[in-house]
Amino acid sequence: MLPPLILAVLLVSAAARASSKSHPLDPLTAGEHSAVRTAVLASPLISDRPLTFHYVGLDEPDKADVISHEHGISSTQRRAFVIARAGGQSHELQVDITNISAPSVLSHAIHHGSGFPRFTTEEEVAAAALPDKYPPFAESVQRRGLDIEDVGCGVIAMGWWGSDEQAKWGNRRVAKMQCFVIADETANFYARPMEGVTLVVDLERMAIVGYKDRVRYPVPKAEGTDYRAEKVGPPFTGPAATPGVVVQPEGRGFHIDGHLVRWANWEFHLGFDMRAGTVISQASIYDADAEMRRRVLYRGFVSEVFVPYMDPEEEWYFHTFMDAGEYGLGTVAFPLQPGGDCPGNAVYFDGYYADHDGKPVKVDNVMCVFERYAGDVAWRHTEALLRGQVYTEVRPDVTLVVRMVVTMGNYDYVLDWEFKTSGAIKLVASLSGILEMKATTYTHTDQIKEDVHGTLVAENTIGVYHDHFITYHLDLDVDGTKNSFVKNTITPKRNTKDPATGGADTPRRSYWTVHHEVAENESDGQVSLNSSPPADLLFVNPSKRTKIGNEVGYRLVPAGATATSLLADDDYPQRRASYTKKQVWVTPYNRSEKWAPGLYTVQGTGDDGLAAWSKRNRRIKDEDIVLWYTLGFHHVPCQDDFPVMPTLSGSFELRPFNFFEGNPLLIRSRPAGHVSSNCSCGAQVM
Amino acid sequence: MLPPLILAVLLVSAAARASSKSHPLDPLTAGEHSAVRTAVLASPLISDRPLTFHYVGLDEPDKADVISHEHGISSTQRRAFVIARAGGQSHELQVDITNISAPSVLSHAIHHGSGFPRFTTEEEVAAAALPDKYPPFAESVQRRGLDIEDVGCGVIAMGWWGSDEQAKWGNRRVAKMQCFVIADETANFYARPMEGVTLVVDLERMAIVGYKDRVRYPVPKAEGTDYRAEKVGPPFTGPAATPGVVVQPEGRGFHIDGHLVRWANWEFHLGFDMRAGTVISQASIYDADAEMRRRVLYRGFVSEVFVPYMDPEEEWYFHTFMDAGEYGLGTVAFPLQPGGDCPGNAVYFDGYYADHDGKPVKVDNVMCVFERYAGDVAWRHTEALLRGQVYTEVRPDVTLVVRMVVTMGNYDYVLDWEFKTSGAIKLVASLSGILEMKATTYTHTDQIKEDVHGTLVAENTIGVYHDHFITYHLDLDVDGTKNSFVKNTITPKRNTKDPATGGADTPRRSYWTVHHEVAENESDGQVSLNSSPPADLLFVNPSKRTKIGNEVGYRLVPAGATATSLLADDDYPQRRASYTKKQVWVTPYNRSEKWAPGLYTVQGTGDDGLAAWSKRNRRIKDEDIVLWYTLGFHHVPCQDDFPVMPTLSGSFELRPFNFFEGNPLLIRSRPAGHVSSNCSCGAQVM
Repeated sequence: MLPPLILAVLLVSAAARASSKSHPLDPLTAGEHSAVRTAVLASPLISDRPLTFHYVGLDEPDKADVISHEHGISSTQRRAFVIARAGGQSHELQVDITNISAPSVLSHAIHHGSGFPRFTTEEEVAAAALPDKYPPFAESVQRRGLDIEDVGCGVIAMGWWGSDEQAKWGNRRVAKMQCFVIADETANFYARPMEGVTLVVDLERMAIVGYKDRVRYPVPKAEGTDYRAEKVGPPFTGPAATPGVVVQPEGRGFHIDGHLVRWANWEFHLGFDMRAGTVISQASIYDADAEMRRRVLYRGFVSEVFVPYMDPEEEWYFHTFMDAGEYGLGTVAFPLQPGGDCPGNAVYFDGYYADHDGKPVKVDNVMCVFERYAGDVAWRHTEALLRGQVYTEVRPDVTLVVRMVVTMGNYDYVLDWEFKTSGAIKLVASLSGILEMKATTYTHTDQIKEDVHGTLVAENTIGVYHDHFITYHLDLDVDGTKNSFVKNTITPKRNTKDPATGGADTPRRSYWTVHHEVAENESDGQVSLNSSPPADLLFVNPSKRTKIGNEVGYRLVPAGATATSLLADDDYPQRRASYTKKQVWVTPYNRSEKWAPGLYTVQGTGDDGLAAWSKRNRRIKDEDIVLWYTLGFHHVPCQDDFPVMPTLSGSFELRPFNFFEGNPLLIRSRPAGHVSSNCSCGAQVM
Repeated sequence: MLPPLILAVLLVSAAARASSKSHPLDPLTAGEHSAVRTAVLASPLISDRPLTFHYVGLDEPDKADVISHEHGISSTQRRAFVIARAGGQSHELQVDITNISAPSVLSHAIHHGSGFPRFTTEEEVAAAALPDKYPPFAESVQRRGLDIEDVGCGVIAMGWWGSDEQAKWGNRRVAKMQCFVIADETANFYARPMEGVTLVVDLERMAIVGYKDRVRYPVPKAEGTDYRAEKVGPPFTGPAATPGVVVQPEGRGFHIDGHLVRWANWEFHLGFDMRAGTVISQASIYDADAEMRRRVLYRGFVSEVFVPYMDPEEEWYFHTFMDAGEYGLGTVAFPLQPGGDCPGNAVYFDGYYADHDGKPVKVDNVMCVFERYAGDVAWRHTEALLRGQVYTEVRPDVTLVVRMVVTMGNYDYVLDWEFKTSGAIKLVASLSGILEMKATTYTHTDQIKEDVHGTLVAENTIGVYHDHFITYHLDLDVDGTKNSFVKNTITPKRNTKDPATGGADTPRRSYWTVHHEVAENESDGQVSLNSSPPADLLFVNPSKRTKIGNEVGYRLVPAGATATSLLADDDYPQRRASYTKKQVWVTPYNRSEKWAPGLYTVQGTGDDGLAAWSKRNRRIKDEDIVLWYTLGFHHVPCQDDFPVMPTLSGSFELRPFNFFEGNPLLIRSRPAGHVSSNCSCGAQVM
C-alpha cells in the first residue's frame, strides 16, 4: 500500500474515536436494546410465550422537545417502541429506558387492524428448513432430477389478495416460499430457480400449510452465473481500472461527535433504525452571511421500497415486495466494504438492531461517511468582455456523502445522502445486485411466441419485468417548523400586447410566467409529475422572507427515476401501495405517520398509510408539514444486467430557493493553488 | 505542495507528450487554418473585400471512408468548410488542404436562403465601440446620471420576427445591443444593466441604424454583485472545503495518441470545432468476452444551445439566443483552470479556431480529460443466504470525463462526456455563471403588483425567467452503421386470467408488459417524453443479436432536465427552434444535417433545421440513423443564483441494452486491497 493511503487510514482511525456525546435521537444502544428486552419479558401485560420481537426502535421524544434540546445536554427521557408477537397477536409497547438498569413498560396495546409486522430473520431461517422435511416437496425435487441437498428456499411475502384469499389461510400469518438450486457450482442461486412450485408456510405454527407443484421448467445452468472473482477468472480480461485514491493532506474535513456530524456549513444527526436504515435528523446549515445556523430538515429516511413484479402467473403474481415493512432495511444493511462500497477516506458507523429474542445484533460498518472529490465544479464564471482581459473564478466542488447499502435478497440498493456546501441535499438510490429470474423452457428469443413477462437474459432464464418505488419521508423544516407547500407552475402565456395583462407591444407572441399557488390542504399537496404541467415545487417558510421579500424556501428538483405505478387502482398490491401513483405527497407532521404503506405491511390491506391519512385532507398551509417523495424505476431487464447488474442511479435534489440572500459559496476561500487569471498551467497535449 | 501531488503532475506532464498520430477527423491544425485562409483570399471566386471568416471547420471525409480508415494510416484527403462574408453575401467554400503548401478551393456557393452565419468576435468588439460615439446614446447615458466611460454594450442576436420586421432593417445583417455599467466597483456588469434602451447595429456598415430610449430604471448598485475572491473577502467565512486530491499511484490510466484517447475498454477520437466545441468520434468499446472492439458512437457533439427569455418587453423580447449558431461554442470555450475546472489528475488539450481574418487563434487547455474517482459503486452483491456466511463482492467505479466549459457572455456551461466501463456514456450539462438581469424600480417584492417576468434577486434587479435547451447530435452506430429506433412502451394490462392473452388464473388484476415498436419513418422517431407513455427508447442493430436472440442495442436513459419549450408554435423564436417541442428526434444520417436550427441561425427563419428535414418523413428503419436529444431546463431564478449561480446539472445516459452477452465488468480484476468477505476493516465510530 502506498504511504499516503496508510497515512489517510491512520488519520481516519485516529479522528474516529471522538467523544461520545448523546442526543435524544440517538439510536438505541446495545445496552438499551437489552433493557427493552428485559422490560418486555418481565412485563405481566403479555403472558403468552414464545414472544418474538419484530420491531424495536427509538420512540423519539416529541419534536418540540427535541428542537429545544441543546446539543450537549444529555437526553432526558429515552423510550423505545416495540412490536412483538405472542399468542398469535401483535403487541405494541412503549418502554421507558431512561435508566437502563430499571426499564419499564409504559404502554401496551394489541393491534386489531389488518396486517402483521416484518418477518424476523430467525423465522425466515426456520421456514427455510421446512421444505426438506415435507414429502410432497421432496417428490417435486426428485421429479426434477435434483438433489434435495442442493435445493434451498426463502420466504417471500405473499401480500394481500382480498378477504377470501386471506380466509383460505385461516386469516393467519403466512408467507410463500421460493426455491432455488443452491449448489457449489455458483453463488448465484437466483439464476437457478426451481420453478413451478408454490409453498405456503404458517409462520406461527412454523409448518407448511399449502403446496402446489404446477409445472416444471428446466433449471438454468450454473455456467455464466457466478460473480465471485475467484470463479470468474483469471484471466481477468475485462476493463482494468487504474487505481486512484483520494488523499486529504490536511486530514478529514468532517467531525464526528457521537452521532452528530459536522462538515463545512452542515450539521446533522446520523441515526439508524431497523426498518428505515439511515435516519438523518436535524440537518441545519450555517449561514455565514446571517451569522447563524438555520434549520433545513428535521428528519429524513427511506420509508418504504415497493417492488412489484409484472408476471401474473401462479408462482409470481404475489411478488409485490415492501422491503422496509416486510423485512426491514436496517436488518439487511450488511457491513460496507472499504475500498469498494466506500472510498479509502471514509469513516464507518456501526448499527444495532434487535433479533427475534430482542437481543441486540451489531452490524459493523453499516453506514459510511466520506468527502467526495469528484472533480465537479461548485460555481464558476469566466469574464471575457471586461476590456480585453480574460478573468476566471472557479471553485471545485467537494461534497459529503452518507451511505448505506441494503441487500434485500437478490437486489442491492446503494442509498446515499449527499450534502453540498451550496445548501443542497441530493438523495441518490443506485440499484445493483441480481435480478429476480424465472426459469423457462426457452433458450432463444425466436422460440418465444407469447408474453413471457420479462426478458430472456440467459438460456432458460427470464429476467422478470418489475418496478422499484423508493419512498422518502422528508420532514423539511425550512428555517423553522411551520412551512407551506408552494407550486410555482410554469404557465404559458400569449402576449396580449397589453402591459396591464403582462404583455407588451412587441412582435413576441408567447412566453411563460409563474403561477404561484400555496397548497391549502392535503389534496393540493399531491403531485403526479408526469401528468402535471411543469412546476417548481417548494417548501417555504411563510414567516421568513429575505431582505427583499422573497419567501425563504427549498426546491424539489427531480433527476430521472420519475416512474409511477401503472397497476390498476383496484389491484391488491396497488391498494397496499396506493401512494405510488404520485411522486409527491405533503402531509401535516404526525409522529405516527412514518411508514408510507402503514405500520403493518405484511398482508396489510392498505387501509392505513399515506393515501389513507391524506384522505382526511388536513391543512398543510403554514403548518409543520412533511414531504414524501418517491423515486420510481420501470425495469425491463437486459442481458447486461446479468448475472449482476451494473449500477443504475436515480436521484433528486433539495436545493435552496431564496433561502439565502445570495450564493453562500462566494465568501468561501479559494482552494490552495487556485489561479484566477488566464493561465496555461496544465500538461499540453497539442 | 504535497510530494504525491507533484509526482502526479510530473507523471501527467511526462505522459502527455505522446506521439502525434493523425486521424481523418482531426480538427484543423494551425497550419491548416493558415492554408485555408491563403486559398480563400487567393481565390478569384470572391473578389469583394473585406472578406471575413465566420466559420472554418473540418469538412469531414465521407463516413464510409472514415470507418474503413485504419488507425495509423495517415489521412488521405483533408478538407475544410468555410463560411465567409464578402460583398454583403454569405459564401460557402470547400477548401482542399491535403497539401497545406498548395491549398485550393474546391467549390464555392453563395447562400441565398434566410439567415446569416455567426457573429465574429471582432465585429462584436467593433460594434461595442459604436455607442460611445453615437450622440443619442451619450444623451441617454447622461440622462441617467452615468459616466459614458463606465458604460459598455455587447451584441445581442436579435432573432427573426417576420419579413415586415426584417424589412425595417432593409433585410440587412443587424443585431441589437445590451448595455451595462462597467465600472471598477464590480466585475459583474451583468448585475448592473442600463435598462430601457434599444440599439440596432448594422454589422456590415458597422453603424448604429436604430435607437430608442424608452424608459429609465435605476441601475442596481454594485455592492454584493462581485464574485472575485479578492473583492469578496477576506474574511472568508463561507463553508471551507478541506483540500483533497486524487493520487494515481500507478500513473494515469488513459493513453493519448494524437487525438485518440484510449482508456479501459473505451477508445474514441476527441475533436474540436468552433461551433460545437467538443466532438467525440468513433467511440468504440472492447468486448473482452467476444474479444473484439465494437462500435458505439460515430460522432457526437452539442448541436445547439437555445436560451429563450420570457419577458415580452421591448428591450427583452428578442433575447432568444442560439449560442452555437449565433456565437459558436468553441469560440467561447476559454482555458480551463487546473484545480478548479478540472482536478489535478487531468490532461489538457488545446484547440484552434479561425478569427475573422481566417488566422488561427489558439485556445490553451480548451478541453480536459480525467479519471474520476467519485467513490461510486460499479456493481455489487452481498449474499447472506448462502448457508450462514455473508459474502460480498463489490467493485468501485472509475469513469473517464471529457470536459469543456463554454462561457456564453453571462452563462457558463460545463459540458461533460463521461465514459463508464459498463459501456455507458453519460452526457452532463452543468449550468453556472451569471443570470441575465433586468433593472427595475422595485426594491422589495411587496411593491410588485404586476408580472415582472422574473424574480427579484436583489434590489432593483430582476433575474428574468428563461429556458435552456441543449441539443445533442448523436450519430450512434451500435455495433455497426445501420440501426433502428425502437420504442419499448411500458403498457399496463388487465389480467385476463387467460394464458392465451398473457394472463393467468390468479388474484392479480393488473401488470405491465412491453409493447415493442420499431420506428419506420421520421415521424415515428419523434418523442415528447412528458406527453408519452413511459417507454424504453433504444437504438438497436437489427442485424446483430446476442447468442440467445436479443437485438443488440443501447438505451437512452433521461435523468432530469426534461423540459420542452412552451412557446407557441407560431411564435418566431419557436419557429426557429421548433425541434425543442420534443426531446427526441431520429433522422437518417446526412452529412449536411448537423445544426438543429439549420446552418444559418442568425436571423434565420427556421425553414431549415431538424423539424424541417424530418418533414420529409424519411425511412429510419435499419438505416444509418442519428439521435438528437435535448436537455431542457425551465429556470425560475432565485437569490441563491445571485450574483453567480451554484452549479445545476441535467444529464442523460446511453446504456448498453442487450449489447453484451452479460455484464462486462465481471471479468475485471478486483482492485488492490479488495476484501470479499465480511470484514470490519474501517474505523469504528461506535
